[in-house]
Amino acid sequence: MYKYIKRGLPVGLILAPQLALGQDADSTPLNAEIGFIFTTFMFLVSGFLVFFMAAGFAMLEAGLVRSKNVAMQLTKNISLFSLASIFYYILGYNLMYPGDAWTITNVLGAFSITGLEPVGLVGAEPDLSYASVGSDFFFQLMFCAATASIVSGAVAERIKLWPFLVFVVLLTSVIYPIQASWKWGGGFLDAMGFQDFAGSTVVHSVGGWAALCGAIILGPRLGRYKDGRVTPFPGSNLALATLGMFILWLGWFGFNGGSQLYMDTAGNVADIGRIFANTNTAAAAGAIVALVLTQLVYKKPDLTMILNGALAGLVSITAEPLTPTLIEATLIGAVGGAIVVFAVPMLDRLKIDDVVGAIPVHLFAGIWGTIAVVFTNEAASLSTQLYSIVVVGVFVCVTSSLVWMVLKLTVGIRVDEETEINGLDIAELGMEAYPEFKAG
Amino acid sequence: MYKYIKRGLPVGLILAPQLALGQDADSTPLNAEIGFIFTTFMFLVSGFLVFFMAAGFAMLEAGLVRSKNVAMQLTKNISLFSLASIFYYILGYNLMYPGDAWTITNVLGAFSITGLEPVGLVGAEPDLSYASVGSDFFFQLMFCAATASIVSGAVAERIKLWPFLVFVVLLTSVIYPIQASWKWGGGFLDAMGFQDFAGSTVVHSVGGWAALCGAIILGPRLGRYKDGRVTPFPGSNLALATLGMFILWLGWFGFNGGSQLYMDTAGNVADIGRIFANTNTAAAAGAIVALVLTQLVYKKPDLTMILNGALAGLVSITAEPLTPTLIEATLIGAVGGAIVVFAVPMLDRLKIDDVVGAIPVHLFAGIWGTIAVVFTNEAASLSTQLYSIVVVGVFVCVTSSLVWMVLKLTVGIRVDEETEINGLDIAELGMEAYPEFKAG
Amino acid sequence: MYKYIKRGLPVGLILAPQLALGQDADSTPLNAEIGFIFTTFMFLVSGFLVFFMAAGFAMLEAGLVRSKNVAMQLTKNISLFSLASIFYYILGYNLMYPGDAWTITNVLGAFSITGLEPVGLVGAEPDLSYASVGSDFFFQLMFCAATASIVSGAVAERIKLWPFLVFVVLLTSVIYPIQASWKWGGGFLDAMGFQDFAGSTVVHSVGGWAALCGAIILGPRLGRYKDGRVTPFPGSNLALATLGMFILWLGWFGFNGGSQLYMDTAGNVADIGRIFANTNTAAAAGAIVALVLTQLVYKKPDLTMILNGALAGLVSITAEPLTPTLIEATLIGAVGGAIVVFAVPMLDRLKIDDVVGAIPVHLFAGIWGTIAVVFTNEAASLSTQLYSIVVVGVFVCVTSSLVWMVLKLTVGIRVDEETEINGLDIAELGMEAYPEFKAG
Repeated sequence: MYKYIKRGLPVGLILAPQLALGQDADSTPLNAEIGFIFTTFMFLVSGFLVFFMAAGFAMLEAGLVRSKNVAMQLTKNISLFSLASIFYYILGYNLMYPGDAWTITNVLGAFSITGLEPVGLVGAEPDLSYASVGSDFFFQLMFCAATASIVSGAVAERIKLWPFLVFVVLLTSVIYPIQASWKWGGGFLDAMGFQDFAGSTVVHSVGGWAALCGAIILGPRLGRYKDGRVTPFPGSNLALATLGMFILWLGWFGFNGGSQLYMDTAGNVADIGRIFANTNTAAAAGAIVALVLTQLVYKKPDLTMILNGALAGLVSITAEPLTPTLIEATLIGAVGGAIVVFAVPMLDRLKIDDVVGAIPVHLFAGIWGTIAVVFTNEAASLSTQLYSIVVVGVFVCVTSSLVWMVLKLTVGIRVDEETEINGLDIAELGMEAYPEFKAG
Repeated sequence: MYKYIKRGLPVGLILAPQLALGQDADSTPLNAEIGFIFTTFMFLVSGFLVFFMAAGFAMLEAGLVRSKNVAMQLTKNISLFSLASIFYYILGYNLMYPGDAWTITNVLGAFSITGLEPVGLVGAEPDLSYASVGSDFFFQLMFCAATASIVSGAVAERIKLWPFLVFVVLLTSVIYPIQASWKWGGGFLDAMGFQDFAGSTVVHSVGGWAALCGAIILGPRLGRYKDGRVTPFPGSNLALATLGMFILWLGWFGFNGGSQLYMDTAGNVADIGRIFANTNTAAAAGAIVALVLTQLVYKKPDLTMILNGALAGLVSITAEPLTPTLIEATLIGAVGGAIVVFAVPMLDRLKIDDVVGAIPVHLFAGIWGTIAVVFTNEAASLSTQLYSIVVVGVFVCVTSSLVWMVLKLTVGIRVDEETEINGLDIAELGMEAYPEFKAG
Repeated sequence: MYKYIKRGLPVGLILAPQLALGQDADSTPLNAEIGFIFTTFMFLVSGFLVFFMAAGFAMLEAGLVRSKNVAMQLTKNISLFSLASIFYYILGYNLMYPGDAWTITNVLGAFSITGLEPVGLVGAEPDLSYASVGSDFFFQLMFCAATASIVSGAVAERIKLWPFLVFVVLLTSVIYPIQASWKWGGGFLDAMGFQDFAGSTVVHSVGGWAALCGAIILGPRLGRYKDGRVTPFPGSNLALATLGMFILWLGWFGFNGGSQLYMDTAGNVADIGRIFANTNTAAAAGAIVALVLTQLVYKKPDLTMILNGALAGLVSITAEPLTPTLIEATLIGAVGGAIVVFAVPMLDRLKIDDVVGAIPVHLFAGIWGTIAVVFTNEAASLSTQLYSIVVVGVFVCVTSSLVWMVLKLTVGIRVDEETEINGLDIAELGMEAYPEFKAG
């Protein structure tokens, strides 16, 4: 690994003018086909990283619920990802990218099923300045699925399986795509100048709002808030939860890095490098702040807070992982970690029972990250950021509350008391995640 | 993530004729060296994904056996992968690719040890239209190892370690490579037009047949089928099994995507994008069908069925992940999921004790996937597909049964009763996987 | 996967002279910007693989400690990685690459904070013959963090959290970067011709020496060596430890492969392919040798030895993963596996209590790997290799012992007896990793 000559020295190779550096999407890359291969492959690599976040969420949530509900939590996570995979191509993807205008034709077109380019691109006229439709669809799908994964943690241990899955279908095929189109589909928030690079608002706050509404409408777990006190329900497997956190951290490199959307120039790939470095730094800062704060405030470090601190750091940097310096990324992530430490007990005081801390991590840190864009990106205005946060929040709260309420009033969304006490695994699945490990 | 302008619009950049699109391997890529770098790197990325499937199999199987056999199952999985890694380069790889004809020289050459290209390709004349030998070997090895991983799950909890490993050596160095050469080494099945893109038959059914023969010759676990009833032996750690399933799903993007074998043109990389999307869709469909069917048939969703349903969806799409549309991929995967739900109890009725469901997932869904090629790929003929399935099946059944029988009649393949009852971990390894978690 | 025509045949495409094959860093690649994109992306992919090793270490170590210390082990691993992420950019990275000479300016410059290239490289004059600073920083950081992860396993189950983290800060911001600069920063060991491709000495032995000094100064766990006997303290979760090993194996492809440092020519990418194949082979050989030796010596295979055997194979090949043939890689890894089997009991005889086997794996196999370079790489001289091992060893032992001793004499580094007996989780964190799984 002989590399010392490579850094910090006067460079020998100056960019020739025709190399057209910079991330301006309009610049002509050297050779369109090579750029197309680079960007498409980058989407596939980023996409499989974000895919793996489904496993991260599953492990995090399975580790943070009690053992009697682990099999159900796993079932929900596999099922929600699978449903998102189907319904996003049936409806969501085209709804999210309606084309250049919200004309009747385009809106009707949104109800068409996603078609990939022909095999070998034979007969196609691909946009060689971007990437293949298949790779783009694959990448975008993973963001949609992540939104649903956020919800499942908050409403764990008491929600019925099937109503939850109905909610997932509506979230991934309608609610998420519509609001995502406002920014990433070229809608009105985008036109206003709203900045949300990889989705602190578009993905994380959406999952967070839906989780918040769900947790409120569902109510807290039995015995959680009694006689004015909060009874801790410790997670059954913190090793698994930690693994989940690490997988999420890994996946976030694809989440934020892939959102550069181009890897066809030196400028674009260098930007992805910046994004990787900043994403990692923000996560580290979030974890450290949670470590230090729980030591200071509670006199003992709290592992689950550290896990959520790292995740909050990641969510915080997601709205703008490119422009910050490493120090700025540290500060942005650090605030995210602090938010978690103070917001988790605050939600408990409000008797909002968020089993895994999804609301502080994804909603509160998501809002913070969206606001923090203004500190490092001149293109962002505070008022537009705030306006967009509110607009998305109102939309998601209204639509998701509507869905939750209709489900509650028709089929019911909560398991009965006996099921909740005995655990969802035995009652609803007839199996246990750890049948041989005796409960203490 | 500002991308709305990129999709569905008339494209500005039309392919210039000299860009030589399309996946025809004979087409001259823009620049041979760039194409070589792309394809080689693609093999390395795909290869590490498929490598990780070894961990996926290990976790899936360790999660589905009882806790008294977990350490042994882990030992078997690490050992089989390690042995495959050695014996495939000593013998298997060259046996699988005998060159352009089965001449005496080539067959003798098959017994030579795999040599990689010289460092820096100095003095070599690499085939710049393909990829480096090292990357190709690395990628192909992982398929061979996957075949052995399939077997270990089916014969778990009662097979002796060393005879199992002897079987693995013969499977990976002789049985797998010989039959693989018939298709991927340019042998007679390939000449007939047999289509098996990434190995529903060549990999999965081979592992499945070997597992089936092993499970039959070995016999069921003690107490599994008694008085005409099936006693359920629940897996000890469904969180671990779920993690294994997710890792396998992740690895499958490399398994199927890398099997495109070229990433040197826009057409090839777009095809890999199609493959990723279809692979994901089929897995999702398999999981959902298993979820819905177990709800309908057994009134309760069954998590292990859902895990196997996703895997069966993946196996089903493996023979042809490129040509299907997303809807066709959904249907192909869905049938795979259904196969699992009905085949698992069927095997139990036949008193064939397949501990993790490897035979339904890899053999039955592998056969289905191989047949399903005819629905979307005009190059496939049903008779050739069926003929190839049978030829490979007969070959693997005969050779693997021979090996199993010789092992049974000489050293024995089954642990004694006391060992099986007390668990293989204590008896054969003198350790426990979870020494502090009391069995309930 | 139709590929038979691609291997072993006379190649049609001979390299045109202007293609400038070979790994000479001075050769001009075809097009500088394309090479820059390839190499930068390669660093990012390699970097996220090495990042994931942090999870691998965490799982390995959490699986090998007793359940009462699992949450603490997880806390330490997340915290050390997070601290390394911050302190390496604040100090370590610039200290490690002081530029072309150790002038006053450069040394002062080392205390500057790492700055990434500007967004989109606008106004920058990037070295297009290498990679972006962001990607290089990201990749290098992961090596630094790995060094700290090695230490945490050896000193587990009795070290205090905060003093350990202080050590981590000094290790990652000062000790590691200074010695790394001697080789990879173009310092005197590099000038002497020391060969250490990916860090058997620079990374693994450094972690190993720091771990050795820590384990000695800290003393063994209570009850571990009593009345001249070694009491085994079995790991609480071997499935988790096995997962950790697999993740480390996966990450090692990035560790060794990325250390090629260039992917801008056919020669460089083919070399990365060689490295992947050799790395995998050495790991497999280490595992098999540990399997066979524990069977022969102890009459029973030992899963934890097999895990460490694979890791020792990986460490052994790290100093030179490029030049060996597959057979040579097998032998190099095999010796690594043997070292572990014999060194683990040897350390116990010396009453050096290394909880996870980090010292045999990273230090002893690291020394072996550094020596073994001379067998396959003509550029290496045995005396220089030995000299470098000793110089690095003395430096790390002196500095890390100093830090350990100062910490011991001031704040103390060891928890009190009661805490150690009851477990660090309850005493120091107030939580348990597996609260519902009763200790047997």
